[in-house]
Amino acid sequence: MKYSKIPVARNVVSLCVSKNIKHVVISPGSRNAPLTIGFTHHPEINAYSIVDERCAAFVALGMAQQLQQPVALVCSSGSALLNYYPAISEAFYSDIPLVVISADRPIERIDIGDGQTIRQKNVYENHILYSANLYSELVLESEAIDKKLQQKQWEAQKHNEREINLALNKAIEEKGPVHINVPFYEPLYDTVENIEVNPIEIFPEITKRHYSKEELLPYAEIWNKAKRKMVIVGAAQPNVVEQKFLEKLAKDDSVIVFTETTSNLHHDEFFTRIDTIIGPIEKDENMQELFEALRPDILLTFGGMIVSKKIKAFLRNYNPKHHWHVDSKKAYNTFFCLNKHFETSVNDFFTDFFPLTTKMDSDYGEFWKNIRAKRQVRHDAYMDEIPYSDLKAMQLLVPKVPDHYIMQLANSSTIRYAQLFKWNPSLRIFCNRGTSGIDGSISTAAGSAMASEDPVLMVTGDLSFFYDSNALWNKYLPANFRIIILNNSGGGIFRILPGNKNSEQFDTFFETVHDLKAEQLAKMYNFEYDSASSEIEISHSLSTFFEASERPKILEIFTPRKVNDKVLLEYFSYMK
Amino acid sequence: MKYSKIPVARNVVSLCVSKNIKHVVISPGSRNAPLTIGFTHHPEINAYSIVDERCAAFVALGMAQQLQQPVALVCSSGSALLNYYPAISEAFYSDIPLVVISADRPIERIDIGDGQTIRQKNVYENHILYSANLYSELVLESEAIDKKLQQKQWEAQKHNEREINLALNKAIEEKGPVHINVPFYEPLYDTVENIEVNPIEIFPEITKRHYSKEELLPYAEIWNKAKRKMVIVGAAQPNVVEQKFLEKLAKDDSVIVFTETTSNLHHDEFFTRIDTIIGPIEKDENMQELFEALRPDILLTFGGMIVSKKIKAFLRNYNPKHHWHVDSKKAYNTFFCLNKHFETSVNDFFTDFFPLTTKMDSDYGEFWKNIRAKRQVRHDAYMDEIPYSDLKAMQLLVPKVPDHYIMQLANSSTIRYAQLFKWNPSLRIFCNRGTSGIDGSISTAAGSAMASEDPVLMVTGDLSFFYDSNALWNKYLPANFRIIILNNSGGGIFRILPGNKNSEQFDTFFETVHDLKAEQLAKMYNFEYDSASSEIEISHSLSTFFEASERPKILEIFTPRKVNDKVLLEYFSYMK
Repeated sequence: MKYSKIPVARNVVSLCVSKNIKHVVISPGSRNAPLTIGFTHHPEINAYSIVDERCAAFVALGMAQQLQQPVALVCSSGSALLNYYPAISEAFYSDIPLVVISADRPIERIDIGDGQTIRQKNVYENHILYSANLYSELVLESEAIDKKLQQKQWEAQKHNEREINLALNKAIEEKGPVHINVPFYEPLYDTVENIEVNPIEIFPEITKRHYSKEELLPYAEIWNKAKRKMVIVGAAQPNVVEQKFLEKLAKDDSVIVFTETTSNLHHDEFFTRIDTIIGPIEKDENMQELFEALRPDILLTFGGMIVSKKIKAFLRNYNPKHHWHVDSKKAYNTFFCLNKHFETSVNDFFTDFFPLTTKMDSDYGEFWKNIRAKRQVRHDAYMDEIPYSDLKAMQLLVPKVPDHYIMQLANSSTIRYAQLFKWNPSLRIFCNRGTSGIDGSISTAAGSAMASEDPVLMVTGDLSFFYDSNALWNKYLPANFRIIILNNSGGGIFRILPGNKNSEQFDTFFETVHDLKAEQLAKMYNFEYDSASSEIEISHSLSTFFEASERPKILEIFTPRKVNDKVLLEYFSYMK
Repeated sequence: MKYSKIPVARNVVSLCVSKNIKHVVISPGSRNAPLTIGFTHHPEINAYSIVDERCAAFVALGMAQQLQQPVALVCSSGSALLNYYPAISEAFYSDIPLVVISADRPIERIDIGDGQTIRQKNVYENHILYSANLYSELVLESEAIDKKLQQKQWEAQKHNEREINLALNKAIEEKGPVHINVPFYEPLYDTVENIEVNPIEIFPEITKRHYSKEELLPYAEIWNKAKRKMVIVGAAQPNVVEQKFLEKLAKDDSVIVFTETTSNLHHDEFFTRIDTIIGPIEKDENMQELFEALRPDILLTFGGMIVSKKIKAFLRNYNPKHHWHVDSKKAYNTFFCLNKHFETSVNDFFTDFFPLTTKMDSDYGEFWKNIRAKRQVRHDAYMDEIPYSDLKAMQLLVPKVPDHYIMQLANSSTIRYAQLFKWNPSLRIFCNRGTSGIDGSISTAAGSAMASEDPVLMVTGDLSFFYDSNALWNKYLPANFRIIILNNSGGGIFRILPGNKNSEQFDTFFETVHDLKAEQLAKMYNFEYDSASSEIEISHSLSTFFEASERPKILEIFTPRKVNDKVLLEYFSYMK
């Protein structure tokens, strides 16, 4: 084994290992050599080398999203760590544990003109759970050293140990990004054979809050009187809610449950496609009446971000009297009527809350389930009618994704199209909706493929794909990794927004029309490549696309850019 | 013409135009539609569309570097603007005026779960000259509106006008990055036909400081007594110093002038290749004696960052008694002995200072010019001897770059190799040494090519090239743009550093060995492509590479990765 001679570097490695971090994504550099040497030699660490730090951070995010445990990032000093920032903000809003460990120069070398030196302290301040700013530790060469200097060194080391503990604990306790900034003096490459550190260990505190019967009773009374209760489930990990609670919700006529595609939560009675319910109402002459009929007395939410803009708009306009959110970490006032945050897990909440509730007779569930059934008929009819387009391609894809795939969806068209379909419930579906950026979807999918034995399918639009094409510069991609690009030659989503279409100004600055194809990238990065430009070609390509292969595969589906917006916008009118 | 109905959007456009901003790089989005519409329709604005915000920001940086005037960036809300951060920190340390204009959601939409919404306020705090956080302005639909609301709106508008002015002025006055964050309510796409705003205009204050004779005399007295005066010129724009002052320095035997490759300042008497002087001394048995002979009494510096690590190490170990820096904005204590910052331009300083100085007899200049002459002989002999390698390829390139090219060098090997050669003085040479990152060199070169009629040559290593390959996704690249990639299959610079070479761990996590080639990217982005793998092939390729063409060109030079470090490290021993 080999570890850095610099104690703080050994302490960082040692504490990461003792807190169960198993994966470290490293970008090359010299200042971070003490960390790189330590992590790459430690037998309990899997280290990965990714050059582009923007990709590296999203790769770590994708891994941590699957593992639900912190994954560490290591980079050199300077602008390197600024390239992590997009993924850090995504992790911050998506509650994904990421540990950024940046090497730095000693403080007296900041702002004196040295290379690769910026103001790293607290640089992620707006979007970070904890910033540990460590002191640089000198490696003292001789015993005969001034006592005061020794004392100072000892204090610095103890400060550092504590800060490393607190940062790592925060990532574990609150599932989000933390930053440990480690300044190093040269020499950077000196090593010792053993890790030989025994840092103080502070254990994370996972507090579990239980609500007493007294605390819950007033809410149960409101619940028991309400004839219309709506539950919305945002982005969530698979299996976060026990099936018996789902059954209970499903069987209550006064409850309807809307689940997002990324909720990873399934029950036949639930409404899986929010926009297919709300969208057509917006086009209906009885809109107001229908929305009033849908407006709940109580809105109960759990899970993370909600994709559907339509349900946000509806509930902001037709505010329920109560909005309660259940989450042990945070509650967003998404509908401007949040009046209770139950700071606990969903299972714990239901465990304590359901015994206090009674079933309520109501036609709320029945009424909307009837509408849902009608919508399904219209949906099927529309899908039979539409020309070749993004929506058509998505329809062809839905039944072909094999069981148990992890599916990663890019922003924004892809996830919005996906929300209109019922997907195989054995899939686990993810999308970077923390910040909803197009900047790291492919890298996130790559990371999830690296962290899971199960195959991963990335479905993306062309802009998200080309934006993050450096994601393919990755030696760790498994052969079962699959990418489908819906290439409509630009940012199709902008055609759906109210801008002034088909002017040169629109084409260039909104839709950003291009004629790029992924074929060359596939060749460069050693992917199998196939393309399709019609329904028949898609069906043909999909018939073998998911078969086992020696290399990962890309399927690029070309659609005509000027058809897609019309097909999507007319969908909602047709559905009503 | 078409402008946003939202007054603040029109005011941003109007004030940018009145402050002489001519170029705006826009990344697609919806929230920024009010700005995009305004900028792209304004007859005095050249707008460019670049999808990847990391590239967009470096493109703007490259333009502003050439124009020496602010260039604006416009992006949507969310993680988009975090992708600007690497270029912002480069601009911050390289003193390049950049105006980041980010669209945002109104403040009540932050942290409530809306898409593409992060904490944008002051997000660049560590590396920005000014953050203007604007209020969102409502477009009032009717006259019959509450007076108090009207007053509130009026105040918001006036606050915004002032903040926009102050931010833009700061970019002009201090040449660096500023951030204007503009929250918008929907609707975003409504337009009016005329710009119809008349914002308050606050003019930038360009203060020019002159030092009086009384202030300068004590320094002149020190100067006049000093037998050894060293001038070091860091990165600078061409022609920042008048030739007569250079003559004066050149003719003083007690002065030696070291100029960096990026100083863009030329005189036959000056020492253009710092490392060829310092490097061999480090290997000399009389090192201490020679360094004492080189140690100046006075060190006078101007210009920006200094690339040479060797001169930093030398002057930190052999501290001069005085270090004076001349710059109207800032002075770094690079050598830990700065005792005077003359806060003025170099020309103004010399205008006032030189009349107070007298020439000093000294053998300082003569002694080192003799050594320089010997070094030149050794240099030429070494170059004749060495095998095919990066250094050899650079030697072959030097005489072939045509007159008046703008040359952009990537970090870090490329600029370090380049520092060992004497380049055609008609070239203008640039390198992103503010943060010395590998993250945006190609985009910076692309921006400089877009802003200049003169041809641009980018010389880069393979890691910098592939890191920033999205730079080629740019419809504005002129046909005379040239890229030369020195592809040694990894981060060659790490082989030069003291790490433990040729282990699997080193290859993967330091050198990051790869087998990528640029050929596919060239095809994808419509570049002419040529490659060379020997001296003869390089000579052959270079014989036509700079000829006029219909498309920009890439020349990829493959060198054997395991030879380069030895060739470079032995260079300094050989030179002594």
